[in-house]
Amino acid sequence: MSNTTTSLSIDLNCDMGESFGPWVMGNDAGVLPLVSSANIACGFHAGDPATMRKTVALALENGVSLGAHPGFADLQGFGRRVLPLRPQEVYDLVVVQVGAMAAVAASQGARLRHVKGHGALYNLAAGDAPTAEAIAHAVRDVDADLVLYALAGSKQVTAGRDAGLKVAQEVFADRTYQDNGALTPRTEANAMITDSEQAVKQALQMIQQGTVTALSGKQVPVTADTLCLHGDQPGAVTFAQRLREAFKAEGINVAPVA
Amino acid sequence: MSNTTTSLSIDLNCDMGESFGPWVMGNDAGVLPLVSSANIACGFHAGDPATMRKTVALALENGVSLGAHPGFADLQGFGRRVLPLRPQEVYDLVVVQVGAMAAVAASQGARLRHVKGHGALYNLAAGDAPTAEAIAHAVRDVDADLVLYALAGSKQVTAGRDAGLKVAQEVFADRTYQDNGALTPRTEANAMITDSEQAVKQALQMIQQGTVTALSGKQVPVTADTLCLHGDQPGAVTFAQRLREAFKAEGINVAPVA
Amino acid sequence: MSNTTTSLSIDLNCDMGESFGPWVMGNDAGVLPLVSSANIACGFHAGDPATMRKTVALALENGVSLGAHPGFADLQGFGRRVLPLRPQEVYDLVVVQVGAMAAVAASQGARLRHVKGHGALYNLAAGDAPTAEAIAHAVRDVDADLVLYALAGSKQVTAGRDAGLKVAQEVFADRTYQDNGALTPRTEANAMITDSEQAVKQALQMIQQGTVTALSGKQVPVTADTLCLHGDQPGAVTFAQRLREAFKAEGINVAPVA
Amino acid sequence: MSNTTTSLSIDLNCDMGESFGPWVMGNDAGVLPLVSSANIACGFHAGDPATMRKTVALALENGVSLGAHPGFADLQGFGRRVLPLRPQEVYDLVVVQVGAMAAVAASQGARLRHVKGHGALYNLAAGDAPTAEAIAHAVRDVDADLVLYALAGSKQVTAGRDAGLKVAQEVFADRTYQDNGALTPRTEANAMITDSEQAVKQALQMIQQGTVTALSGKQVPVTADTLCLHGDQPGAVTFAQRLREAFKAEGINVAPVA
Repeated sequence: MSNTTTSLSIDLNCDMGESFGPWVMGNDAGVLPLVSSANIACGFHAGDPATMRKTVALALENGVSLGAHPGFADLQGFGRRVLPLRPQEVYDLVVVQVGAMAAVAASQGARLRHVKGHGALYNLAAGDAPTAEAIAHAVRDVDADLVLYALAGSKQVTAGRDAGLKVAQEVFADRTYQDNGALTPRTEANAMITDSEQAVKQALQMIQQGTVTALSGKQVPVTADTLCLHGDQPGAVTFAQRLREAFKAEGINVAPVA
Repeated sequence: MSNTTTSLSIDLNCDMGESFGPWVMGNDAGVLPLVSSANIACGFHAGDPATMRKTVALALENGVSLGAHPGFADLQGFGRRVLPLRPQEVYDLVVVQVGAMAAVAASQGARLRHVKGHGALYNLAAGDAPTAEAIAHAVRDVDADLVLYALAGSKQVTAGRDAGLKVAQEVFADRTYQDNGALTPRTEANAMITDSEQAVKQALQMIQQGTVTALSGKQVPVTADTLCLHGDQPGAVTFAQRLREAFKAEGINVAPVA
Repeated sequence: MSNTTTSLSIDLNCDMGESFGPWVMGNDAGVLPLVSSANIACGFHAGDPATMRKTVALALENGVSLGAHPGFADLQGFGRRVLPLRPQEVYDLVVVQVGAMAAVAASQGARLRHVKGHGALYNLAAGDAPTAEAIAHAVRDVDADLVLYALAGSKQVTAGRDAGLKVAQEVFADRTYQDNGALTPRTEANAMITDSEQAVKQALQMIQQGTVTALSGKQVPVTADTLCLHGDQPGAVTFAQRLREAFKAEGINVAPVA
Repeated sequence: MSNTTTSLSIDLNCDMGESFGPWVMGNDAGVLPLVSSANIACGFHAGDPATMRKTVALALENGVSLGAHPGFADLQGFGRRVLPLRPQEVYDLVVVQVGAMAAVAASQGARLRHVKGHGALYNLAAGDAPTAEAIAHAVRDVDADLVLYALAGSKQVTAGRDAGLKVAQEVFADRTYQDNGALTPRTEANAMITDSEQAVKQALQMIQQGTVTALSGKQVPVTADTLCLHGDQPGAVTFAQRLREAFKAEGINVAPVA
């Protein structure tokens, strides 16, 4: 899924449906009009059956493409802690979560379009081939038409392709990159790009030139099929609006991965 | 789904996959060779992703038809306590559980054939039309080809048919009946038929004559599409074997609902 | 615990520590300086071990009296749904929650002062003697020095006294009352007093005159040992400030129950 | 707590109360008459409020000393998976679990005597000082009179003593030891002693001579204050009986740590 220069296109995705019971998280109604794909929590690290239904409905109202967002079974840790699962257990976890979300979509006359791992599961799969393969096989075995979202250049990309899945490589506007194309770990001071203009600039470079400027200044090749918005951050809506303005000015189309 | 006299057939169903994490329940491997349909717990009142996978695999090895067995989200209470849910919440609960189990089936190249509510949800739906309708609508909206299992003569039968679903009416060999066709509540002393020969006799009468003898002695009409085995009881395997012998002797075929 | 006319005193209590994992609820830091007693969630309907510790610490910093706030084991329903528990199960539930919170207090060199049931458990206990007795016995059996908070005039008051506990009768400034002293159910339109001046007036009347004006206009006797603030409502802090100003002007002391 | 040669004594401890809701685990009623101390699950990795109450009652009937058995909050993994917690989170986890169990004991007029970490938490604390210290501080801060059970020679022993707690060093009859006094990891083939006579012999040597013969044949010093029985194993009762016979023949007293 590379973009041609004649008609550049990018998918904007965002995590959604992360409320649980009485507890509200994120600003789904504000963010949904600005993205093209929603990664919807499946009730294991966040979300519950009612929240899943409402989030799918809201995404459909906004014409946003539906994705399942499976994570570790860890509500209290919000799926951000690595649980020591065997690949078979990762597989099982992804199968049931994708299935639950597919049914919610089906009950509203819609279909899932993609799957993106959440939090610690996503990060683990980027660097750990057995986990990446477990996720890819689970997605393929439930529905081989689903698109697998994966950190650009990571082991999840390889595992997805090896499983015969369409893979969307994901990039981040507000994260800095290393010389090897990896994200700078959040534990380091300069992991985040807090200046929104610089973030917009990085997004444009990744989409238009297929490169990102690493912290060292090196130009690193990167494939940008989909860009992740962090919906739980204070300025999420404003930043998304700014991004879309920049995309419009540059003639970049915002749409789900083809 | 009435049976013709020329070729009587009955489905034997049993709850399965009710282990959770380290805790084992039931004797699935012993019971599966004797039944034609498995109602598999979906992780909300029992079961977990690994147990779901293993139970589906074991059912398929035994040529047993797959069913989802959704229940209240209440592990500690094992789905036997009525949670005060609104119909919309019941609908949501059933959608995600059926979806999760459908995905497990799909991941093994199989399809779900039926849905049967568990415990308190099943009992509630038998007498409460809004709950019965919520379940029926959820099943229909996820997959209109699924067969809905329902207590014979109950509101769940009506709700399922009104939703356009195929309904399998369920009877019990080891429970006594009231004059109105209802089961005697378990809180009453004579609710259970503990003599296995009497239970076999009741099963034959229900299948062959379409009637059951109520506690009062009255002959009550009943439709027997599927017969429930209680797999968690000590003599479950022995009783199932006895039932199958009797069915064989009487020329009654054991098979999933057509 | 009646108040003497020479030195009127009222306890102001508020639910606290109702966040869970990544999800925040309420404005504990804003409300704590304005109340005298905190009812702290124990991890069953809300709260988690870290939140319990932080909330106890914050209460102690503010010189606020510590209370355990046990509820049904129902995070998703936030303890607002009645679970059909036997009295023995209610007893068990209260024992472990009070014990957990007592340990958090002890680990910070402090002691619990009171126990108040949460949500559906509180409401159920107000009208159901077996539930009220189960709670009272649990509190007494864990620590007979604890004060039991109970809806003024309810069965929980009787049950607490019969168990030998000190009971604090609780009143509400922002709820309307019936002729029999009961709260108007929230399902009715006029259950809430939304005008804050009227709520302050009702609070003063309950404390100073020991009566409340029912919806019918009837003067109903009521004992006001403690007044409940709803900390999760938008204007909670402002209303608490307004109440304290009125109490100061009237010479009413705000302090934990003696 | 060293034993004198004039009157050798050993504590026999066993994990108890590991059922959950409808799921039964272990044979508490069979094992309790044979041990002197019970490590009772606190509802986080196993157990529930009713099971906690029943297990405490059964232990008291058998004159068995009560202990809290806190574990990771992971029912599905039964506390056998390491969750990546910070020391503060471990501290919080232990505080609430010890408190809950202390309250159950108090409600039956009894007191906790000891605390032993469960599964992955116990193993982690044996080798990781920050975890060991978090547990020790939590126990001390809740009740400084509690005895901390710790793998003999491990970092938990040091952490407990540094916190001012009485520490009971724990040994295993059915596990093999390394030259450095550590247990052979279960992942290795010869980790377990399956011959019960050899296990009895090892127990006697540890108690009477204060040594254990490592797999290499080396005599390694070990302090045996308490011996762990594995109650969930098939021959648990028979092995415990055999152990007690051997202890009786050798004049070794079985009693809680002094």
